Amino acid sequence: MFCFGGGKIIVTWEILNIIGTLAFVISGALVAIEEKYDILGVYVLGFITAFGGGLIRNLLIDIPIRTIWEQDFLFGIAFLVITVVLIIPSKWILQWQKWIVFFDAIGLGAFAIQGANFAVSIKAPFIAIVIASTMTGAGGGMLRDVFAGRKPMIFHSDIYALWAALAGMAIGLNIVNGPYMTFFLLMLIVICRMLSVYYAWNLPQGIKWNDQQSMNNKRDA
Amino acid sequence: MFCFGGGKIIVTWEILNIIGTLAFVISGALVAIEEKYDILGVYVLGFITAFGGGLIRNLLIDIPIRTIWEQDFLFGIAFLVITVVLIIPSKWILQWQKWIVFFDAIGLGAFAIQGANFAVSIKAPFIAIVIASTMTGAGGGMLRDVFAGRKPMIFHSDIYALWAALAGMAIGLNIVNGPYMTFFLLMLIVICRMLSVYYAWNLPQGIKWNDQQSMNNKRDA
Amino acid sequence: MFCFGGGKIIVTWEILNIIGTLAFVISGALVAIEEKYDILGVYVLGFITAFGGGLIRNLLIDIPIRTIWEQDFLFGIAFLVITVVLIIPSKWILQWQKWIVFFDAIGLGAFAIQGANFAVSIKAPFIAIVIASTMTGAGGGMLRDVFAGRKPMIFHSDIYALWAALAGMAIGLNIVNGPYMTFFLLMLIVICRMLSVYYAWNLPQGIKWNDQQSMNNKRDA
Repeated sequence: MFCFGGGKIIVTWEILNIIGTLAFVISGALVAIEEKYDILGVYVLGFITAFGGGLIRNLLIDIPIRTIWEQDFLFGIAFLVITVVLIIPSKWILQWQKWIVFFDAIGLGAFAIQGANFAVSIKAPFIAIVIASTMTGAGGGMLRDVFAGRKPMIFHSDIYALWAALAGMAIGLNIVNGPYMTFFLLMLIVICRMLSVYYAWNLPQGIKWNDQQSMNNKRDA
Repeated sequence: MFCFGGGKIIVTWEILNIIGTLAFVISGALVAIEEKYDILGVYVLGFITAFGGGLIRNLLIDIPIRTIWEQDFLFGIAFLVITVVLIIPSKWILQWQKWIVFFDAIGLGAFAIQGANFAVSIKAPFIAIVIASTMTGAGGGMLRDVFAGRKPMIFHSDIYALWAALAGMAIGLNIVNGPYMTFFLLMLIVICRMLSVYYAWNLPQGIKWNDQQSMNNKRDA
Repeated sequence: MFCFGGGKIIVTWEILNIIGTLAFVISGALVAIEEKYDILGVYVLGFITAFGGGLIRNLLIDIPIRTIWEQDFLFGIAFLVITVVLIIPSKWILQWQKWIVFFDAIGLGAFAIQGANFAVSIKAPFIAIVIASTMTGAGGGMLRDVFAGRKPMIFHSDIYALWAALAGMAIGLNIVNGPYMTFFLLMLIVICRMLSVYYAWNLPQGIKWNDQQSMNNKRDA
């Protein structure tokens, strides 16, 4: 799907894509387990998180959905990974949590860049590029949370989708182009994401309705 | 996308479409603020409400999604509007609430009519026309509520989607056609919507399970 | 959409498809009533459950959405069925509940087989076939629950989607092919589904976090 010039880069990109997908699979499976879903639910939510992200991406940027089903190999690995998550002691998962966050950051970056590059290729306006990168990077996680009956995590805690949005801006403003700078951007996203987890950065909330009562009053009136 | 004959009408229609989209943006941003989402969440939910409505419309009526991304100008204004919503004192928003409801009614009508007209153009059956107008008119609000972790408002309070459905019926039964009657229909939707807000009209609920206990008993049995 | 050779089989298949759709309509309407949605909400959720399942199927397997709107006749019946559900005494619905579950099982099976067959026809890999059958069979119910503000039932209780998944496996492994075996598979799904309701079978949950506290502790730390 991507042609960045050098064959080496393409291969690397494929690998990053796989790493990201698998991280999304794991995050979906873990959320399902936390919600006490049954075994099938764990598989389904794992797949929804990973391939739902791709589905939203394909939908938003008009790629036929069948390209998702053709990722032969990836479905197999995803299945295996979920099985492993179900089998291994939960203690191990706790120990690996940092790695999961790391892989997930790679997925965030890889998907965001894909979304932004496509939006550029169809000459979408700047803000559309930013939205495309945000939704393709963070869309899988949004679906995961909705299907787990949660408010999407990306809306209220941690700085997650912002890095995808900033990546979109960098590409949209043509600050980043070509295979090497794109790769550098990916690394930057991963680093920023890891820092925001490590230091528990949060974005400020919207306006505080310290006069919310008056709003409710008005409604009752 | 619409060709109603006179150039004047096309321009007017474009403007109504913009007004509606911006009202959806504001309603999404306000819901996000109420849910204590962070700043990025406010932007994302604002965009989802506005362009998610269009996304559902395009999906349901097989228009390529890329037409959404090409609304150059609209994304820019939407971004500005959300920024304004975040900055201005909440007191002002309360004072403007009636205007927001009014603009939102325009969006409801404009989107509903678009959906119905398209369904007619592909010779969809009557009920499909009604559904298309309902879902395109009220789809953005449904997405907004789902991503805010709420039960969609259109399902349980106020009369909202019904006006979109009735518009679809009027178009489906060919009571309304041509640019001038369509415009009149739009005004009618807006008026009905405003009245239903002003007088707090509600539709009756479904069957009351006054024998719900027996249902639960049966389940336990 | 399906060409199984004999004209008789095609007709039968159409009928099964209709039965399934109507069962989905009823299940959506009943959930809406349970959630105290208003009358319009009952119609909308009924339609979402029935045609949303078809929508997800069409999306996932790249069939144009307009094929849904062309189901002329089905929309009319669905509308009637919801009206009947709203009108008749709730006592009757309780008495018919077993039939609803039975019809729903037919829908599950018919949709799952459609999804799997399509995935085979585009030479999707094995696991994609299984996912396609699962999501097309159980997708409508997932949408229903999300729009009712519930955690999707298929994730946590009863054995439902598993039968769709197993049907996908049987087709993906080429154990089942041709019209007669496909029909037999459908009957098998229906029987298994009915048994799992009758005996209240449940799948085991994911890993029990008996050390969940330690997870939370770690998060707080």
